[in-house]
Amino acid sequence: MEKNQVPDIVVARLPLYLQTLKTLENEGAYNTSSKDLGQKLGISAAQIRKDLSHFGEFGKQGTGYSIKYLTECLEEILHVNKTWDMALIGVGFLGHAIVNFQGFYNQGFRIKCVFDSDPNKIGQIVAGFEIMDIKNLEATIKENRIKVAMITVHAENAQEVTEKLINAGVKSILNYAPIVLKVPTGIQVQYINPIIELQHMTYYLE
Amino acid sequence: MEKNQVPDIVVARLPLYLQTLKTLENEGAYNTSSKDLGQKLGISAAQIRKDLSHFGEFGKQGTGYSIKYLTECLEEILHVNKTWDMALIGVGFLGHAIVNFQGFYNQGFRIKCVFDSDPNKIGQIVAGFEIMDIKNLEATIKENRIKVAMITVHAENAQEVTEKLINAGVKSILNYAPIVLKVPTGIQVQYINPIIELQHMTYYLE
Repeated sequence: MEKNQVPDIVVARLPLYLQTLKTLENEGAYNTSSKDLGQKLGISAAQIRKDLSHFGEFGKQGTGYSIKYLTECLEEILHVNKTWDMALIGVGFLGHAIVNFQGFYNQGFRIKCVFDSDPNKIGQIVAGFEIMDIKNLEATIKENRIKVAMITVHAENAQEVTEKLINAGVKSILNYAPIVLKVPTGIQVQYINPIIELQHMTYYLE
Repeated sequence: MEKNQVPDIVVARLPLYLQTLKTLENEGAYNTSSKDLGQKLGISAAQIRKDLSHFGEFGKQGTGYSIKYLTECLEEILHVNKTWDMALIGVGFLGHAIVNFQGFYNQGFRIKCVFDSDPNKIGQIVAGFEIMDIKNLEATIKENRIKVAMITVHAENAQEVTEKLINAGVKSILNYAPIVLKVPTGIQVQYINPIIELQHMTYYLE
């Protein structure tokens, strides 16, 4: 089945299924069902079955899914059965938090290099990483063939950093700066913005 | 029109429209169009018109939208024409980053109180906030009638904190802990999880 046949909204749910499977595995479970997964995620069992059917057949009627097998399949589909090196740009409070985040391990990602433009920060060590001069961004990313980056710079610098990253070969950008990035076709951007999530919820509040 | 008639996926896009309008306003623009907004967000103009039509008529064919007027309408719809006090629980690296985040201002939110369980942190001042003992969580939240909270504790403590927050009257939770929270009907939870966003993007990478 061709990639472009799967709606992006379906792709967006696969990491949620994978996360839930890993939680179940950590809790000692071996098998699960669409109903089980759905209850944990607030998604209908039918939706989960339909989503997974885009990629093949993973379970058996009556017995459900092997957690180990479905985990491996989803990791393969999402290309996280390997580890992606990442660059982080901007070592403010948020950058510090991310560099110290232990959650990338075993999820397909690891931070490889960390950049800032502040002369007072360059050369400092944070969580084992030497903060590199942003002037060396493009050369370092090319050299290490890094395809994934996280942007935690101020909004006014985010577009410039984005263009440097793309020039250096980065294909996927997780943007924490509160600005919509302009990128050419073929470059993925996802946003982390607490305001968007908070405003989504206050809609439902009186 | 009743609230429950608007699909949640439509509600989820409204904060994106509001953010984009604010960016346009900051750039000095007075008017915009569905096409303009759509291009900035990677959403079709038709989708934007359809989304907004759930709530009324905000623009005129040919002249588009007044940015000021549509901003005010969206702020009212999302209930961010007022300022919501928030509690933050967990002052690790990420909690520090959020307490220092300047972006809540003028978006409908402000941090009101900050909690941790670590005796070494309690009483310390972070970005002007005294870190309070988590033992006082429920009393303080009730007293201040706080309805919105952000959780930045470790995954293993997040469910317990959630239950305390709900007991104290919190209705909307932004959860940064990498765990799916169990909450009763009527409580909103949104998740901030970089892994989910990263895995969504690597699907498209070779």
